[in-house]
Amino acid sequence: MNKTHLGYQKTIDFYGCDPEKINSKDFIEQALLKAASIMNLTVINTTIHEFSPIGISGVIVIQESHIAIHTWPEHSYVALDVFTCNQSYSLESGMEWLKNAFKATHYIEEDIKRGALERINALNAIKNEN
Amino acid sequence: MNKTHLGYQKTIDFYGCDPEKINSKDFIEQALLKAASIMNLTVINTTIHEFSPIGISGVIVIQESHIAIHTWPEHSYVALDVFTCNQSYSLESGMEWLKNAFKATHYIEEDIKRGALERINALNAIKNEN
Repeated sequence: MNKTHLGYQKTIDFYGCDPEKINSKDFIEQALLKAASIMNLTVINTTIHEFSPIGISGVIVIQESHIAIHTWPEHSYVALDVFTCNQSYSLESGMEWLKNAFKATHYIEEDIKRGALERINALNAIKNEN
Repeated sequence: MNKTHLGYQKTIDFYGCDPEKINSKDFIEQALLKAASIMNLTVINTTIHEFSPIGISGVIVIQESHIAIHTWPEHSYVALDVFTCNQSYSLESGMEWLKNAFKATHYIEEDIKRGALERINALNAIKNEN
């Protein structure tokens, strides 16, 4: 399959999560590293930040781009983003694993494609003409 | 204005950028920190990674959530994400500054709202009934 875009972004919203689990910095860090491994994504660097009084933010630079997470324990809600430069990774198995880890009732994914190559090539052609 | 969502995400695509600038790790780091400051966002932690042979990835944890960047110098293209927990920041002034810094011909923003409070409250009510 020809690559049509430079970036493939998934937004995943987890609902009904266990508030205690998603308020633990260690738990979130370990869960993300495990999910990245299940999805066959290569972790370069991890930053997890604990907010006062509640909530965790985490960003992971991966060889394929990044993973970001924000948790709202008071709403049993987690927002996850997975941004990659190709689609050849096992998203579903990672998300199923995280759903169980967070004890979420369900999750909803959306797709965003970034940097359409057709548009980029057309714009660069115009720029080079000028 | 009442808060309707937990997360407000902007995706911004910069086209026609200067390839040399957007392939410099130091330049990208300084540009992001400056843009965060212009937007009145509070930086907690910065990670910038240089890919071989080309391209930069960066993620910044901010008090308000995160900023992520990926550059494709070979396509003069930059994908930026700004994820915040409220909308009270100066996005446009930051993006205008970055457009000039990257020497981009233009940029396109899209809005994504995450974690609709109406949905979250309804789901949590169902969960608590069971």
